Amino acid sequence: NHVLVLGYGELTEPILEELGDRARVVIVTPDEARAKRLTDRGYDVVTDDPSDEEALQRTRVDAARSVVVATNNDAEDALAILTARQLNPDIHIVASATQRENERKLRRAGANTVISPAALGGHFLAESAVGGSGLETIEERLLDEQPTDPTEDETVQTNGAGEAGDPGPDGQN
Amino acid sequence: NHVLVLGYGELTEPILEELGDRARVVIVTPDEARAKRLTDRGYDVVTDDPSDEEALQRTRVDAARSVVVATNNDAEDALAILTARQLNPDIHIVASATQRENERKLRRAGANTVISPAALGGHFLAESAVGGSGLETIEERLLDEQPTDPTEDETVQTNGAGEAGDPGPDGQN
Ligand SMILES: [Ca+2]
Ligand SMILES: [Ca+2]
Repeated sequence: NHVLVLGYGELTEPILEELGDRARVVIVTPDEARAKRLTDRGYDVVTDDPSDEEALQRTRVDAARSVVVATNNDAEDALAILTARQLNPDIHIVASATQRENERKLRRAGANTVISPAALGGHFLAESAVGGSGLETIEERLLDEQPTDPTEDETVQTNGAGEAGDPGPDGQN
Repeated sequence: NHVLVLGYGELTEPILEELGDRARVVIVTPDEARAKRLTDRGYDVVTDDPSDEEALQRTRVDAARSVVVATNNDAEDALAILTARQLNPDIHIVASATQRENERKLRRAGANTVISPAALGGHFLAESAVGGSGLETIEERLLDEQPTDPTEDETVQTNGAGEAGDPGPDGQN
């Protein structure tokens, strides 16, 4: 009943932080140095290609709770998704489309949920730029869900108003 | 009362789509080919360095509604933020930290809101992986706010359940 993380990329550390104690995590990466650092931090790691069938069988993909596929290489992600889907037709697979135009392809490969960080970021930035009403609520909700220490500077999203350059009561705009 | 977009990167197209008709947009980019393509699409473009003071004065940063700084190069973003903040101490500046660890620096440079697409994406993926209750609501809200045609495949976030590999009633997990 573990969460299987296939490959390592820019999103992996935020994902590991968010998962925290909520799930046992098994990570598959072919990068030996990376694997060692993750093992040293206490993670279960399989040092192998995330689209290798035997490797995925060793991770017990048949008994996993879900699979996360979110490297910076969408082609490798597609191959890892196809492999996981083939070995477990019922597993919940979530993926990140680094190139927004790959969303559909990763879904077609077998991912149930595909997120585009660029589209998400663009959404929040545009909302903030025009003072959209939805932003603050979503922002607060995200912050509420954050398990991290608020004194750390790694919150999902933060509003610097009140620090340098508080926009004040919109005088000139 | 325009939105000033400083530089062009991975997030720019999602931002332009989201802004749509909600604001007049002026884009500053030194890339002449990019500037031409944007001009051909009807955008106001200033072909110059986004951290050039004279260029920013020509964009009327003093009268803008807000400034969006979201290229893939956080160092250039920092310089553009510093320039805009210097020319307009009251303007609302939103920025994207491509490297999550630069969030604090971009705020210190003068951005009011800084978003990390990697942290945002990681948050949603982790929520989806453990079946967090908040996801569907936020997801629906994002989709509701999307001005795009639902037949296009460019929604912020989509759940492929019901397509290939519907996880079903969690039999094996
Ligand atoms: Ca990817
Ligand atoms: Ca950036």
